[in-house]
Amino acid sequence: MAKTEPRVVIIGAGFGGLACAQALGGAPVRVTVVDKNNYHLFAPLLYQVATAALSPADIAEPIRRILHRHRNIDVRMGKVSGVDTAGRQVILSDGARLPYDRLVVATGSIYSYFGHEAEWQRHAPGLKTIENAREIRARLLYAFESAEAITDPEERRRLMTTVVVGGGPTGVEMAGAVAELCRYTLSRDFRHIDPRQARVLLIEAAPRILGPFPEDLARYAERALEAKGVKVVTGAMVDSIEADGVVVGGRRIPAGTIVWGAGVKAAPAAEWLGIEPAKGGRIAVEPDLSVRGLDGVHALGDVALAAGDDGAPLPGLAQVAKQQGEHLGRALARQARDGTPVPPFRYRGRGNTAIVGRNAAIFDFGRRRLKGRLAWLLWAVVHVWLLVGAEKRMRVTLQWLWRWLTYQRGARIITREPPDAEKQL
Amino acid sequence: MAKTEPRVVIIGAGFGGLACAQALGGAPVRVTVVDKNNYHLFAPLLYQVATAALSPADIAEPIRRILHRHRNIDVRMGKVSGVDTAGRQVILSDGARLPYDRLVVATGSIYSYFGHEAEWQRHAPGLKTIENAREIRARLLYAFESAEAITDPEERRRLMTTVVVGGGPTGVEMAGAVAELCRYTLSRDFRHIDPRQARVLLIEAAPRILGPFPEDLARYAERALEAKGVKVVTGAMVDSIEADGVVVGGRRIPAGTIVWGAGVKAAPAAEWLGIEPAKGGRIAVEPDLSVRGLDGVHALGDVALAAGDDGAPLPGLAQVAKQQGEHLGRALARQARDGTPVPPFRYRGRGNTAIVGRNAAIFDFGRRRLKGRLAWLLWAVVHVWLLVGAEKRMRVTLQWLWRWLTYQRGARIITREPPDAEKQL
Repeated sequence: MAKTEPRVVIIGAGFGGLACAQALGGAPVRVTVVDKNNYHLFAPLLYQVATAALSPADIAEPIRRILHRHRNIDVRMGKVSGVDTAGRQVILSDGARLPYDRLVVATGSIYSYFGHEAEWQRHAPGLKTIENAREIRARLLYAFESAEAITDPEERRRLMTTVVVGGGPTGVEMAGAVAELCRYTLSRDFRHIDPRQARVLLIEAAPRILGPFPEDLARYAERALEAKGVKVVTGAMVDSIEADGVVVGGRRIPAGTIVWGAGVKAAPAAEWLGIEPAKGGRIAVEPDLSVRGLDGVHALGDVALAAGDDGAPLPGLAQVAKQQGEHLGRALARQARDGTPVPPFRYRGRGNTAIVGRNAAIFDFGRRRLKGRLAWLLWAVVHVWLLVGAEKRMRVTLQWLWRWLTYQRGARIITREPPDAEKQL
Repeated sequence: MAKTEPRVVIIGAGFGGLACAQALGGAPVRVTVVDKNNYHLFAPLLYQVATAALSPADIAEPIRRILHRHRNIDVRMGKVSGVDTAGRQVILSDGARLPYDRLVVATGSIYSYFGHEAEWQRHAPGLKTIENAREIRARLLYAFESAEAITDPEERRRLMTTVVVGGGPTGVEMAGAVAELCRYTLSRDFRHIDPRQARVLLIEAAPRILGPFPEDLARYAERALEAKGVKVVTGAMVDSIEADGVVVGGRRIPAGTIVWGAGVKAAPAAEWLGIEPAKGGRIAVEPDLSVRGLDGVHALGDVALAAGDDGAPLPGLAQVAKQQGEHLGRALARQARDGTPVPPFRYRGRGNTAIVGRNAAIFDFGRRRLKGRLAWLLWAVVHVWLLVGAEKRMRVTLQWLWRWLTYQRGARIITREPPDAEKQL
């Protein structure tokens, strides 16, 4: 009997792929979830790993643990190297082939360096993976260790300067968190430098930060950032990024740590499918999230280009991916039972949020807006709630309470040597 | 005035170096603590990081945070490349020189592979650093992911076999923890393999494990290990270690993960001092912990070879290092005030302990001995107590309680790809 059940392969266990798999739990289908990592990552809190507030394991849960109750779901750790759309098989880098009747591509997005990947990426890591976050944490903390050890005032100033490129929610969160790290956490632990004098610059090409948010909320966030000591530079294009600084609008800013949060593009899944990628490398999908011209293939989340009710592309948000995953998972479950086709997906925006730091966040619920301490509390409650598993919720809550009380951060460790360690000292 | 205060340089912020620095806090001396890491590591719990129970940050605290209250103490992250004993300067790898009046060498120990470092180390990491622990965790978890993905029964059996070399406390703890990881934590999360059938072998060259413990306690530990599913092999010499297995007494044991816990030697500090190393590469010290023939140089902890009351060398234990550090720190503080020479150090053994796992540990207090559930509870209380900082204590307690209730482990993440990842699959 089990032999005749349709096989669903889901590539990627981010918000979209995981929601899809969970909705298929117990359905009369055989599901295989493929991911290059063994864990689902709660990416919205990666910036807290990068700024020593949380540990990687606080925001990462094994995929097979999350799905272990659903006996019809198989989890496979592996890298996809291609898809044989004619033969309906996903090909893994180890040569294995996973046959499918329905394929769900949910591979998310990666940072885009506007064609400068080769030169810029290694100097300015983005915030997409645990390895990224650990790298940024090491660079930040190491820059202060190096500054403490030298006497040259100019080099010290450089090391104590952090540049965050991109004024979207990630850039804002990162800049605010770095400023608080310097001002509160590191402030009294050094003898030869004063971390409170560290500089944090947030560089945005548009005339203002937080473009998708209403102007009043964005202005509030900008003021809150400035109050925490972040210098917000808008209307400024990055010309180049080097190991020891960035050039912005022709002016060179020496920096010890550079973080990239300026643009994303889809993970390169369109190539696997042999189709022409749409804008941003994304896979254009129909209202039912199917990929035109490819039978049995769906795409969702950041990798998909889906139109909203107004015809504009849906934004690359966790809640979009999650809703799409749930929608498709339920629809495929129903289809397996009675053959009903997948109905069109409709996105229900539940509000946008960004956090600046202690006591400062913004929420945009469309008609209603919220900012300040209440928004910050709500942000914390929502994010703890969204974490997977009771233990992670307790652990993160405990660490946040502790930080709120003491201004200390529990993960201030440099766990790998920066590649240019000797050079910096 | 400050100019005339004697300068004390302490190399290494392990148990010994840190205790010495803390005892010197507020004394009329200027102290510099040099360490290659920015954190003090609570090494006794590293095996819990290696088996996915704790995160690195749970057992590592920034050195400058621990010492920040003492304004006379400077912390320097850096690698020592040598010591100019004639000019009384410590030389760092970046070329910096730290002048000293008193030097305290507390660099600890590293794993010894009995002359096979080049071939064995990469296949069988030890448990001395966070990077080690993370590497072992990745190998362990990845071996099960690989076993799940293949069908060859022999290769599956190999991947699901873990060999721990060395039946001292570290090996016993590690073997017990791996067995519990397989039997309880991973047991229900796989579809094609049964992790409860995983094999764990503990290899010891001596006729019995836990040599320094009384025989009845060691026998109890052996029985407790066997009850958890560990196969204890004593009187067995390791002939060679390869990528995919070990050869023990002429017999080849294919293995997916190999952990080394068999022998240690002193960190190579004797070279820096230009002296002939004593047994195990250690630095022979006088009763006052001074190094003979070198004025103003002391050594303590695992790197030092000090004689106990019975004339036998003191063991390489955290409590020996800690007591020596406190002793020397207090003595140097007194010396700076009134010129009193450093009195001889006397070790007071407070008991030895080893843990096998859930409900099973042993304590040897000399006349009194303890084993079983009570010893296990005492072990947990003592180790939480010994952690630095209230937040770490709370965090670890919470995670242990959670594990005790649910059998789950919170850090089951593979955060770097094993070097031979493609080969294994």
